[in-house]
Amino acid sequence: MRIDNRNNDQMRLVKITPNFLKNPHGSALVEFGDTKVICTAMLEEKTPSFLRGTNQGWLTAEYDMIPGSTIVRTSRDVSKGKISGRSQEIQRLIGRCMRSVTDMSVLGERTIWLDCDVIQADGGTRTASISGAFVALVLALDRFKEELKLEQLPVKNYLGAVSVGIVDNIPILDLCYEEDSRAMVDMNIVMTSAGEIVEIQGTGEARPFTKTELLSLIQLSEKGVKTIFAAQKEALANVLEF
Amino acid sequence: MRIDNRNNDQMRLVKITPNFLKNPHGSALVEFGDTKVICTAMLEEKTPSFLRGTNQGWLTAEYDMIPGSTIVRTSRDVSKGKISGRSQEIQRLIGRCMRSVTDMSVLGERTIWLDCDVIQADGGTRTASISGAFVALVLALDRFKEELKLEQLPVKNYLGAVSVGIVDNIPILDLCYEEDSRAMVDMNIVMTSAGEIVEIQGTGEARPFTKTELLSLIQLSEKGVKTIFAAQKEALANVLEF
Amino acid sequence: MRIDNRNNDQMRLVKITPNFLKNPHGSALVEFGDTKVICTAMLEEKTPSFLRGTNQGWLTAEYDMIPGSTIVRTSRDVSKGKISGRSQEIQRLIGRCMRSVTDMSVLGERTIWLDCDVIQADGGTRTASISGAFVALVLALDRFKEELKLEQLPVKNYLGAVSVGIVDNIPILDLCYEEDSRAMVDMNIVMTSAGEIVEIQGTGEARPFTKTELLSLIQLSEKGVKTIFAAQKEALANVLEF
Amino acid sequence: MRIDNRNNDQMRLVKITPNFLKNPHGSALVEFGDTKVICTAMLEEKTPSFLRGTNQGWLTAEYDMIPGSTIVRTSRDVSKGKISGRSQEIQRLIGRCMRSVTDMSVLGERTIWLDCDVIQADGGTRTASISGAFVALVLALDRFKEELKLEQLPVKNYLGAVSVGIVDNIPILDLCYEEDSRAMVDMNIVMTSAGEIVEIQGTGEARPFTKTELLSLIQLSEKGVKTIFAAQKEALANVLEF
Amino acid sequence: MRIDNRNNDQMRLVKITPNFLKNPHGSALVEFGDTKVICTAMLEEKTPSFLRGTNQGWLTAEYDMIPGSTIVRTSRDVSKGKISGRSQEIQRLIGRCMRSVTDMSVLGERTIWLDCDVIQADGGTRTASISGAFVALVLALDRFKEELKLEQLPVKNYLGAVSVGIVDNIPILDLCYEEDSRAMVDMNIVMTSAGEIVEIQGTGEARPFTKTELLSLIQLSEKGVKTIFAAQKEALANVLEF
Amino acid sequence: MRIDNRNNDQMRLVKITPNFLKNPHGSALVEFGDTKVICTAMLEEKTPSFLRGTNQGWLTAEYDMIPGSTIVRTSRDVSKGKISGRSQEIQRLIGRCMRSVTDMSVLGERTIWLDCDVIQADGGTRTASISGAFVALVLALDRFKEELKLEQLPVKNYLGAVSVGIVDNIPILDLCYEEDSRAMVDMNIVMTSAGEIVEIQGTGEARPFTKTELLSLIQLSEKGVKTIFAAQKEALANVLEF
Repeated sequence: MRIDNRNNDQMRLVKITPNFLKNPHGSALVEFGDTKVICTAMLEEKTPSFLRGTNQGWLTAEYDMIPGSTIVRTSRDVSKGKISGRSQEIQRLIGRCMRSVTDMSVLGERTIWLDCDVIQADGGTRTASISGAFVALVLALDRFKEELKLEQLPVKNYLGAVSVGIVDNIPILDLCYEEDSRAMVDMNIVMTSAGEIVEIQGTGEARPFTKTELLSLIQLSEKGVKTIFAAQKEALANVLEF
Repeated sequence: MRIDNRNNDQMRLVKITPNFLKNPHGSALVEFGDTKVICTAMLEEKTPSFLRGTNQGWLTAEYDMIPGSTIVRTSRDVSKGKISGRSQEIQRLIGRCMRSVTDMSVLGERTIWLDCDVIQADGGTRTASISGAFVALVLALDRFKEELKLEQLPVKNYLGAVSVGIVDNIPILDLCYEEDSRAMVDMNIVMTSAGEIVEIQGTGEARPFTKTELLSLIQLSEKGVKTIFAAQKEALANVLEF
Repeated sequence: MRIDNRNNDQMRLVKITPNFLKNPHGSALVEFGDTKVICTAMLEEKTPSFLRGTNQGWLTAEYDMIPGSTIVRTSRDVSKGKISGRSQEIQRLIGRCMRSVTDMSVLGERTIWLDCDVIQADGGTRTASISGAFVALVLALDRFKEELKLEQLPVKNYLGAVSVGIVDNIPILDLCYEEDSRAMVDMNIVMTSAGEIVEIQGTGEARPFTKTELLSLIQLSEKGVKTIFAAQKEALANVLEF
Repeated sequence: MRIDNRNNDQMRLVKITPNFLKNPHGSALVEFGDTKVICTAMLEEKTPSFLRGTNQGWLTAEYDMIPGSTIVRTSRDVSKGKISGRSQEIQRLIGRCMRSVTDMSVLGERTIWLDCDVIQADGGTRTASISGAFVALVLALDRFKEELKLEQLPVKNYLGAVSVGIVDNIPILDLCYEEDSRAMVDMNIVMTSAGEIVEIQGTGEARPFTKTELLSLIQLSEKGVKTIFAAQKEALANVLEF
Repeated sequence: MRIDNRNNDQMRLVKITPNFLKNPHGSALVEFGDTKVICTAMLEEKTPSFLRGTNQGWLTAEYDMIPGSTIVRTSRDVSKGKISGRSQEIQRLIGRCMRSVTDMSVLGERTIWLDCDVIQADGGTRTASISGAFVALVLALDRFKEELKLEQLPVKNYLGAVSVGIVDNIPILDLCYEEDSRAMVDMNIVMTSAGEIVEIQGTGEARPFTKTELLSLIQLSEKGVKTIFAAQKEALANVLEF
Repeated sequence: MRIDNRNNDQMRLVKITPNFLKNPHGSALVEFGDTKVICTAMLEEKTPSFLRGTNQGWLTAEYDMIPGSTIVRTSRDVSKGKISGRSQEIQRLIGRCMRSVTDMSVLGERTIWLDCDVIQADGGTRTASISGAFVALVLALDRFKEELKLEQLPVKNYLGAVSVGIVDNIPILDLCYEEDSRAMVDMNIVMTSAGEIVEIQGTGEARPFTKTELLSLIQLSEKGVKTIFAAQKEALANVLEF
């Protein structure tokens, strides 16, 4: 039995509150059980220098945790003068995934900034971030639909992410912190609502894993993302029409 | 008439939600109208090196804004590799005020970290931070009451802060962002519930000010902090008994 | 009796040597007793990016202490890779005060850099810096009077600053280091020769203070700045004609 | 036909020169075609602070490219004052993989530093680094066999890594730079000679990918790592006896 | 007798392999005995800002050591966030020397980047770097001869550097690491094939030195650079015709 | 004729004011004509980690220029987050020279910090710094003579430094800024009063130089340092008895 009485193939409660903050162009509070992340999307009227003059848009992401989000205080990156390796890895992942499902050519020379700030951490902050950032992104795109003369929003599918892993030799879905900290194998999968994989990252923390185990982890993921797509659909009702 | 229909001597709605997060030893969400700050307090089992061997405790504060808290995205300090002058000034102020009302000698060689993370900014983030950090601090102290063998909590008074300013030559209380950005004179006052001043910082942004104006600003502050003490009292009911 | 036999409302010897260095456009050595600060003013032919194209000038200040200025060696900020919180706070204060008394619109797209380098510290370095920087600033403005086609210098009043504080429960003027280090309340006030306040910063270091105490500290300041205006007037004879 | 006339399931020439440098405890030059990486392993007589007192060893990796390794000069990380996100991601990956196949408990309180310095880059630098670092690591362990009183070296299998990807909709093995830069899907797989997966990282750069495609990429990898194990076996003849 | 059986006025084996890497415009591996440095030269189509609009070229150098180049691992500069004083001194020296023998006016607004990366260190890395960088530079210039419409390469002489020193009170040529670490006097001299001095840097590490000793050290240098000019001539056969 | 009417072998007025500041253990203001440097020496009760437990002392130097010391404002190193290459080179030079003439074994586990802060620059700041730092150092040593139980001060000779150079093909002594900026050859020599060389650094800025020219530059130096030794002797009368 899992620590919170879930079945091995069961997600925690997934909740997405759209328009959580008033200032950003798009925002959402995403909750995977006790994990809570504020996701915001803001448009800036310029692109990075490598895109100047191409009439192409860009999308970039940043990820951080507030110090009080964890049981032991997480010290701020700025106090060490540089972003942590872990944060950098996660924000590169978020940006890459979001770019892969957005047609940035319709944005003109603009950048969308996606910010994921974890306010409470209980495992799965990166997958919650991706799932919530998608909602913030769509809300921001919707806000500029008219100004950018978009007939339809430049995203084709929902995008969700879940963590899976092998704990006590058993594959399970959506690990909470306690499970994550003793997982033998740890994997994050990002998928579209068309059933395709956008990113897969699997690590044998305590031991390597077989191809058979890999396949059962993927199956769990496929189940998990459905819960996320449902929560996104509800949060984006009247905004995204598929 | 003020932009949000308040009287010149009227605070915005002040709301303090105690125990807002589950991981820190103490926490509160403080709201001054649309300004929202997450305040957390966490005890660490060591002190800065200048206190080692003295059996004295310490208290330090950090302040930050998430990028989506403002109308124009606030870029993260870490992306510039160093904390901004403004953030540094504010967190030094918060720490100084909290230390001034806490008897740190009873803590033993421990540090209390206070973190104020602004999630939505509409003026007065530093005064909201101080007012909310006080609640988080008391909640954390209460949690360790037994372990630290405290007969009573080592704080003697409530501590609140408000901003006042002169806009269109009229002294007003608790400026929202729109008012703050065109204030001629800008002042922050931190007071105890015993009616004494802990810190006063006043700046003639667009013009200097007279001693008479200074006095009327202080009078407005004295009115404003009462609202804050009431909200703190409610948030700390059963914890602080005065 | 005070450590240097002064009365409670008595300034130390204030001395301002104009044109102390040959290279800057304006310079002064300011002395408040044993506290000695070299203040320089230099014009640069460009403004920060937020002012480009506005035909507006700007004024910015930097503050530092040489390592040998203090009893215990002060390590250089650069050895830690970043400016200290204290230095940053002080230089922001100096810049803010100088901008408040200068009409920067007549400068065109130019920046005036004010540098305050403490070579000997004995309390009151920030107030000495402000008082000396004003002289350096006026000397630099005077040097460019013709080139900038100014009929009169773009400052309307003298600007001086003093520290006051409560030591052993007694309000005193112009604290030396020994007094400053055991002050219960510490305050810096910046005033114009028109008798108005530009900045007030008061902190209850060891205890809060009452409104009555605040008023007596302000009265001491009003007395102290007169000494400074006199020294500035002498240093700027033939330059500033009021 | 591929740019260098290889079959889709064909590795470039893999060459590993052991003991390439005289100073490190272990070293190797690894070549995957034109990609050349110097890998070194050095033992240090202490561990990171989180392991002090545990009698446990540690293993950490760093990755860098010399500026002249690429067609357009790669500027040094230090000139920006911080390690790039890409380098950080790669060195975290290398360290994780090496730790997963090494029994660090036999090292005592020692750290093994693995350094991978790319001197010529033509795609696959991270997989070449892992494959070469394994050889450097084993050589260093062998050198200390006696001193550490090891009956056998604390590694159980060979460890190799390859890149695979989908270019022009066709899955191919071991991408060179030209192929990598236009890959639709990009994947790195790290495997042991026991046929198990240590790490899998797949990204849909230009489009998502199906589970079927994922499986065919894994199959290519399984073929590719055999070539690497053969080269490692040759480089470690007389050192590793399996 | 010296540790490697050389005479006091004898260089170690000097070997320069031109075109060592395929990506840079010019490259060389230089070896002074066991000291090995990869030198590369790359042209960039812009100059530093202080030269914009002058139609003048520029030349700059960077120097680094890979961590495994030394007996005790050299930690990377980037891990401390800044370049070491030693590296900075050396790369300033390399750049200065190369600029002194190159007519940069014929380059137009271009910068040549010279990178010297030590892969194995056994004393004399800075003099080996200068000697090898000269070859990389000439190869890069030769590659752009046509594009830059140069009738002849803009260098007039060969440029070589050697270290000399006083060990056990005896002046010797080309110190290896073991000798360098116990040298009383340490000197580096950079000379042209016309017999003139470009740079001389001598330090009394353990004791000062006399003018007579200085002269005998210079004589040794004059002998040593001849070996280097010969190796450069061979490496640049068919490229530099003098 | 030189710009300030000096002969080619003539120093500017050299003036050393001992005990210039009240806080450091030793201090001096050194002037070479219009070049003015504040030199201070301060003892710290610990050594760098590489000397712990050896009962050996250490000596280290830092060099900086205040922004107003130059005609065009010199921006502070800290604003770029790192020390400039030039400053680093100079402070390494100062430290090396001072260590070479001081018997650090008598200091016990203590560090002497030497700080050279240029307040006015007109060429020769590094040689003035060395010459002044020597005086500050001796004054600090003298102050601790009793505490350290020194029978005599642990320095054996005076130490002075001068710049020489070739301007318009003529060797001259002690270059001012105007001369320095158009020197073909630039050299700094540090010598003891016993007539020996501690450091020589010569650079062919605009052209290489011959051995004959080198010798005539050394001769000029030998003349110049005599003026410095005389000024040091005067400043240290009653302190250093040789």
